[in-house]
Amino acid sequence: MNDFAETTVRVRYAETDQMGVVYHGNFFIWFEVGRVELCRQLGFEYKRMEIEDDSYIVVAQAQCRYKRPAHFDDVLTIRTRVTQSQRRTIRFGYEILDHKTGQTVATGETFHVICDGRGRPKSLPEKYRKYFPPTPLKEIARAAARPVHS
Amino acid sequence: MNDFAETTVRVRYAETDQMGVVYHGNFFIWFEVGRVELCRQLGFEYKRMEIEDDSYIVVAQAQCRYKRPAHFDDVLTIRTRVTQSQRRTIRFGYEILDHKTGQTVATGETFHVICDGRGRPKSLPEKYRKYFPPTPLKEIARAAARPVHS
Amino acid sequence: MNDFAETTVRVRYAETDQMGVVYHGNFFIWFEVGRVELCRQLGFEYKRMEIEDDSYIVVAQAQCRYKRPAHFDDVLTIRTRVTQSQRRTIRFGYEILDHKTGQTVATGETFHVICDGRGRPKSLPEKYRKYFPPTPLKEIARAAARPVHS
Amino acid sequence: MNDFAETTVRVRYAETDQMGVVYHGNFFIWFEVGRVELCRQLGFEYKRMEIEDDSYIVVAQAQCRYKRPAHFDDVLTIRTRVTQSQRRTIRFGYEILDHKTGQTVATGETFHVICDGRGRPKSLPEKYRKYFPPTPLKEIARAAARPVHS
Repeated sequence: MNDFAETTVRVRYAETDQMGVVYHGNFFIWFEVGRVELCRQLGFEYKRMEIEDDSYIVVAQAQCRYKRPAHFDDVLTIRTRVTQSQRRTIRFGYEILDHKTGQTVATGETFHVICDGRGRPKSLPEKYRKYFPPTPLKEIARAAARPVHS
Repeated sequence: MNDFAETTVRVRYAETDQMGVVYHGNFFIWFEVGRVELCRQLGFEYKRMEIEDDSYIVVAQAQCRYKRPAHFDDVLTIRTRVTQSQRRTIRFGYEILDHKTGQTVATGETFHVICDGRGRPKSLPEKYRKYFPPTPLKEIARAAARPVHS
Repeated sequence: MNDFAETTVRVRYAETDQMGVVYHGNFFIWFEVGRVELCRQLGFEYKRMEIEDDSYIVVAQAQCRYKRPAHFDDVLTIRTRVTQSQRRTIRFGYEILDHKTGQTVATGETFHVICDGRGRPKSLPEKYRKYFPPTPLKEIARAAARPVHS
Repeated sequence: MNDFAETTVRVRYAETDQMGVVYHGNFFIWFEVGRVELCRQLGFEYKRMEIEDDSYIVVAQAQCRYKRPAHFDDVLTIRTRVTQSQRRTIRFGYEILDHKTGQTVATGETFHVICDGRGRPKSLPEKYRKYFPPTPLKEIARAAARPVHS
C-alpha cells in the first residue's frame, strides 16, 4: 500500500445544501481534487497525461461512506492513495478529515480505467508505470475477498 | 422488491467536463432527483417530510458504476426503487438509461439513515411506514451475502 | 424583439444552500438550459452547431437580478429570447418565474461571441443566420442608451 | 475604494465543460469564495455573522465579464473588495487573474442586501459597520452615472 498524498480544501457556501451541511455529491469532486494532487506529488501533472499522451483516467466506479457532516468554511484534509493498479486500471482510496479535529468526515474509493480521448480502454503509457506499479496478484485476490462495506 | 419510479433529465452543458462527457459526480445529483420523484410517486412530497415531520433521509453511503458515457443534451431515464428498508434506514437502487437507446448508462445505490434536523438518527415517522415497509430479515441477510460490485 | 421560448425545471436538492433557498450561481445554469431550448424551438440543436459547424456560442458577459428566492422542489419556468444579434454576437434575455404563482423569481441577460473550437471569434455560419437575424443598428443604439440595472 | 483581499483557487476538473475551459457559472462561486476571504481579512468570519447575528449577505444582483478562458489545474487569484456600502446594502467588485501570467481572466460585481434568516431586509448589525463604512453619497451618485458595461 502506498502512502497518502494530502491536500486541503475549505468548504464553499455553494457546496452546502438546505440541510445546513455539505451536499453529499461534492465529496466526489474532492476525491478528484485529491487524485490530481496525488499525481502531482507522485511526480507528474495529470493534465499533461491527457494532452501529451492521450490517456485519461476514467472513473468506472465511485463510492463514498459519510461518517459525520462537513460544514461551510470548514477546512478539510483530503488524503488520497493508490490502493491497486494494473496495466489498464487504477484504484484509489480516500479519507476526508476535519483539519481542526482530525476526525474522519468520509472515506471513499474510486476505480478507473485508462482510456484514450475517444473513450477506448488502453494500457497506461510506459512512462507512467513507475508511478503506478502493478499490484501483486496475491494482494488483489485478498482485497477482492474482503467485504466492501466495512 | 418494489417497482421502479421513472423520471427523465436532459443533460445540461454545465454537467459536462473537458472529457466531452458528463462529469461523474453529477450522477449522484440525478440519483437524488430520482429519490424525490420516487417519494412523489409513492404518495408524499419529500420536502414536506423535512418541514412537517423534522425527518431527513440523510445519505450515509453512495456508490455508482459507470457503464457508458452520457453526453450533453442526451435525455436520460432515471429509474429508482427502494431495495431495503428498516425502521431507521432505507436503501435505494438506481438505473440511469439512455432514453433513446434504452442502454444502461450507470447503476447505483445509496444507503440512508433517517435523522432529525440536528442530524440525530430517529425512526421513520409512523405515517411514512406504509411507503417503506420493513424488508424481511431473511432478505436482508441474503442481500448482505451477495458481492456488492457485480 | 422575438418571442420567449419556455421550458421548466424543478429545483434539485443539490441546488439549494444552507440559507434554505437556491444558491444564486445556479441561475446561470438555468439560463443555459433556456438558451439550449430556445435553439431547439427556433429549429436547430445547439450541440450540432458545435459538432458540425465548429461554432460555439461563448459567454462573454452574464448577469442576473434576483427578485425572490426559489426553493427546493419548486417548478420554475425559464423564458428565454434573443434580444440582440449581429454577425458575431448574440444577446439573450431571461425571466425565471415561479410556475405555480407566475411571480418573477429572477431576470437576466447574457452576451455571447461566436467562436470556433479554439476560442477564436468568427461569424455565425450562414445557415444559422435566419435564426438570429441582425438587429437594426437603430435599436442597438437605443438599447445601449438604456441604464442596465433597472 | 478599499483594498483588494486576495486568495487563490486551483481549477477543478469538475469545473470544466466540454468546451475544454471553465464553465462560466463557476466564476460566481469563486466570487463567493472571494467574499468570504475578504470578510476574514477584514476581521470577522462570515459564518458567525449568520449564526450569531442572524444576518445574511444575500445576493440581489450578480454579473461577470469574461476576458479569457481559464483551464483545468490553472491557479487563479481572486481579488475582492467592497466598492460600496450603505446601512442595508453592500456592493463587491472582483478580479480573477491567472496567477502565473497575471492576466485578467474575468471581472465581476455583486450587489447584496442584508437580510435575516427569513429573508427580510435589515440593517447591518452595529458591530459589522466598521468593516463596511457607509460610502459617501457623492461617490454613489458618481458610480451610478458610470456606464456599467465598460
